[in-house]
Amino acid sequence: MGKPSPDDLATSVRGFDRHYGLELLDVGEEQVSAQVRVRDELKQPAGLLHGGVYAAVAESLASLATALAVLPGGETAMGLSNNTSFLRPVTDGVLHALATRLHRGRTTWVWDVRFSDDAGRTCAVTRMTIAVRPLREGAAPSAS
Amino acid sequence: MGKPSPDDLATSVRGFDRHYGLELLDVGEEQVSAQVRVRDELKQPAGLLHGGVYAAVAESLASLATALAVLPGGETAMGLSNNTSFLRPVTDGVLHALATRLHRGRTTWVWDVRFSDDAGRTCAVTRMTIAVRPLREGAAPSAS
Amino acid sequence: MGKPSPDDLATSVRGFDRHYGLELLDVGEEQVSAQVRVRDELKQPAGLLHGGVYAAVAESLASLATALAVLPGGETAMGLSNNTSFLRPVTDGVLHALATRLHRGRTTWVWDVRFSDDAGRTCAVTRMTIAVRPLREGAAPSAS
Amino acid sequence: MGKPSPDDLATSVRGFDRHYGLELLDVGEEQVSAQVRVRDELKQPAGLLHGGVYAAVAESLASLATALAVLPGGETAMGLSNNTSFLRPVTDGVLHALATRLHRGRTTWVWDVRFSDDAGRTCAVTRMTIAVRPLREGAAPSAS
Repeated sequence: MGKPSPDDLATSVRGFDRHYGLELLDVGEEQVSAQVRVRDELKQPAGLLHGGVYAAVAESLASLATALAVLPGGETAMGLSNNTSFLRPVTDGVLHALATRLHRGRTTWVWDVRFSDDAGRTCAVTRMTIAVRPLREGAAPSAS
Repeated sequence: MGKPSPDDLATSVRGFDRHYGLELLDVGEEQVSAQVRVRDELKQPAGLLHGGVYAAVAESLASLATALAVLPGGETAMGLSNNTSFLRPVTDGVLHALATRLHRGRTTWVWDVRFSDDAGRTCAVTRMTIAVRPLREGAAPSAS
Repeated sequence: MGKPSPDDLATSVRGFDRHYGLELLDVGEEQVSAQVRVRDELKQPAGLLHGGVYAAVAESLASLATALAVLPGGETAMGLSNNTSFLRPVTDGVLHALATRLHRGRTTWVWDVRFSDDAGRTCAVTRMTIAVRPLREGAAPSAS
Repeated sequence: MGKPSPDDLATSVRGFDRHYGLELLDVGEEQVSAQVRVRDELKQPAGLLHGGVYAAVAESLASLATALAVLPGGETAMGLSNNTSFLRPVTDGVLHALATRLHRGRTTWVWDVRFSDDAGRTCAVTRMTIAVRPLREGAAPSAS
């Protein structure tokens, strides 16, 4: 599989990812990096970056990278579980995300995603489990 | 603490929650309910409701209910971990969320959030751990 | 599938479960109950019941109940993830465990396990995800 | 704090850790290593190393290292959550565990524990969150 071009990456940011502002930087087979610019519409009431933004980014990076790898083989990828731990709040600047593949199995892939702020401090970590399933024509995708 | 009025609830939906369209229905001390109308800007590339939306809703319900309970005592609440499992995809209609308090400790509260579709089927579950910390004047909130 | 008799249950407690003292009480398709008598050899250095005991019980209850249901159909069951939250320490008496099935999918089953002490207080909760896979003759089972 | 001697390490293996056979190898402030020899009494019915063993090891390594660091300051450490993902079964040989500190906060420490088999393959990963609390004389420790 060829490496996605920047245009491919821009195109692949759709729907919710576009809505909250995901910017893909590099998509590899074992690592994916991205960023999100912190702005008021991404915050929770106390002025911190909302926890759901971290979870969304982790979900997207792990799902995208797994999907790119398994789609050519007729399989699909979708999130099975998303476990995010919050370590340090982010209030401005840019949220940096780096997803690293921990495990590539037949039916599940596991990724670790590390989030850092502009000072390079780890702010949150996510463990994502992605289900890999046969892509059945005409069937609605299902995590189960 | 008096029960929040509908106006209070509407006001409390700000920032990211307003951005993705959280609608609070009922906020109690031990249960909170809410919903989100599924639309294209909340989906991932395969047309399913994005996993980050579930995580964001769970984060908000548990944080809000904990904060309402502890703020009068001079404490603040923030997400410590958000563990979401995806069971069945949602593609349209309304996502229904019900958060139930499992544990009320001195320093951590634990909530279970159950998501269902319009047919009443459970589609995802989240276990949220919320940190309760003293509200220190002039200090930036921190999960640590 | 007939309900397991007490003898079946006793027989099914082997290996590690026997080593730490799991006592199965009732095994149903959607709920399983069990208990463990707290003793010094199950404690951590500060005198509390070791967190690994809760995790082991949750793993066993969810795996056993899933396996009993899928083995007749030629499938096997094994733990995919075990997420345990500790709410209140247990230092003596009996640890009571109740596993309830949340989801029965084609490839993953999800269980909630609630642990309580002799006073009925919730002490820990586990979310177990069990992988259901075809039982291939001669093949070593694999979570992947 | 001086580095624990082998005798200290042997002494610190008590209760449940001694029961299942934890062998501490090296205890540092940011990394801890240990191993467990696989034997029949640590297995589940299908002949694999029981998932509870991984969870117990992760709990012990993270709790011990955190406790060693915070006890001199009058604080105590205990498990708040233990999230273990199973990637590849272990059936014999030695289970190798390496815990690495991800975060050192005022009230919570977070550790990643990676388990491998004799061939060096990653078999499971655990994210442990440890609560750090003031050690109140005469009070029973509590996660809450």
